[in-house]
Amino acid sequence: MSTAAVVVIGDEILSGKVVDCNSPWLAAQLRTRGVDLVRICVVPDVIDAIAEEVARASACADHVFTTGGVGPTHDDITLAGIAEAFGLALVRHPELEALLHEKVGGQPTDAALRMADVPEGTQLWWDGDLFFPVVVVRNVHIFPGVPSLFQRKFEEVAHRFSGTVVSSRQLVTYERESIIAARLGEAQARWPQVAIGSYPQFDQKPWSVTITMDSRDLDALDACEVALREVLELA
Amino acid sequence: MSTAAVVVIGDEILSGKVVDCNSPWLAAQLRTRGVDLVRICVVPDVIDAIAEEVARASACADHVFTTGGVGPTHDDITLAGIAEAFGLALVRHPELEALLHEKVGGQPTDAALRMADVPEGTQLWWDGDLFFPVVVVRNVHIFPGVPSLFQRKFEEVAHRFSGTVVSSRQLVTYERESIIAARLGEAQARWPQVAIGSYPQFDQKPWSVTITMDSRDLDALDACEVALREVLELA
Repeated sequence: MSTAAVVVIGDEILSGKVVDCNSPWLAAQLRTRGVDLVRICVVPDVIDAIAEEVARASACADHVFTTGGVGPTHDDITLAGIAEAFGLALVRHPELEALLHEKVGGQPTDAALRMADVPEGTQLWWDGDLFFPVVVVRNVHIFPGVPSLFQRKFEEVAHRFSGTVVSSRQLVTYERESIIAARLGEAQARWPQVAIGSYPQFDQKPWSVTITMDSRDLDALDACEVALREVLELA
Repeated sequence: MSTAAVVVIGDEILSGKVVDCNSPWLAAQLRTRGVDLVRICVVPDVIDAIAEEVARASACADHVFTTGGVGPTHDDITLAGIAEAFGLALVRHPELEALLHEKVGGQPTDAALRMADVPEGTQLWWDGDLFFPVVVVRNVHIFPGVPSLFQRKFEEVAHRFSGTVVSSRQLVTYERESIIAARLGEAQARWPQVAIGSYPQFDQKPWSVTITMDSRDLDALDACEVALREVLELA
């Protein structure tokens, strides 16, 4: 089993001007690949805030994905934040510098060349037909914030992230949560390897509760589902 | 100026089964009320993870809003997490206990009564015509995860959160970011009280860059906008 954390870098998300669609999209992708997402955090365009959260995410998950803050302008400070997180210097990467010269077809601006300044020890992943490689610092994978670029880039490297996929079951009951809570709690105690969730909805009558069961242990999942159907008196 | 942080509690968000729409909605609300959102974090249904993030959020922002994990079932552990964050005991609140008796119209189940077990020193906010009060522990405001309930509840207490609203300006240019970066950086250095953002889009031709300017200082905002229009050669 491997775990992941996402760090979203962007004042535009925190100010409510733009809705983050990268982390929901990535959450679904990771789920289908069997990787457990354990944390998502949105931080402002502030080097110390990025550094602090990247260090935390890197310590608590196997894989970290950052999104946003990687262009050539003054507000693009993700690479500096990651360097600070690990106490690394920013150094110009010859391969990235050559790439920028090639893509621009002339002398890149100083601003463009900042995109070649990466933390020491950075790896470049050139999977598929990427226009610009994925920049990887330790277990931190750096992605752009623009959703179409984010998705295309992740899809090229997705094969590197995989684990046993979690299986899910779902039941719907029309009993109130407070009435069924004891029975759910007993089932959770009996099958600790199954994560049982309870999600009420009050927007449409009749009110209902969706019970979810998630596990990598299919025998436990089957047994838990059978038992819950029985105690909840569902067909 | 006051600041806010959001802690989203929910395995269902991290597993990609449900998209968090509460934090984007709240981000927009806080913006219109002049409160600066400085952090959003999604954590799993794990007491220690909730406690750790609530403590961090409480220290870094004036107001914390939690969403999710407040019902009567075994996976509803937000109150326990907040108690742990501050080293407080969970104690049964007489007013909440009476409310549960009244709403249920009989003896509530033990599970329902768990919703009356709150950290010592909890305050209850009975604004407007709330069915169930907003539970407040120090600077942490506890909201349900169900979006319709979350929104209704926040709207009743929104009047308590206000500050000077940030004003915004926006320009669109068809120059590449790497070409205009130096000019943007100079403007940012000249008007530090204006937050200048640069957001490229590559989904439609012609590619464009949206430049945003945010500030509470209207004179600086005006001057910055005039200067950027001039150096970017925009009408």
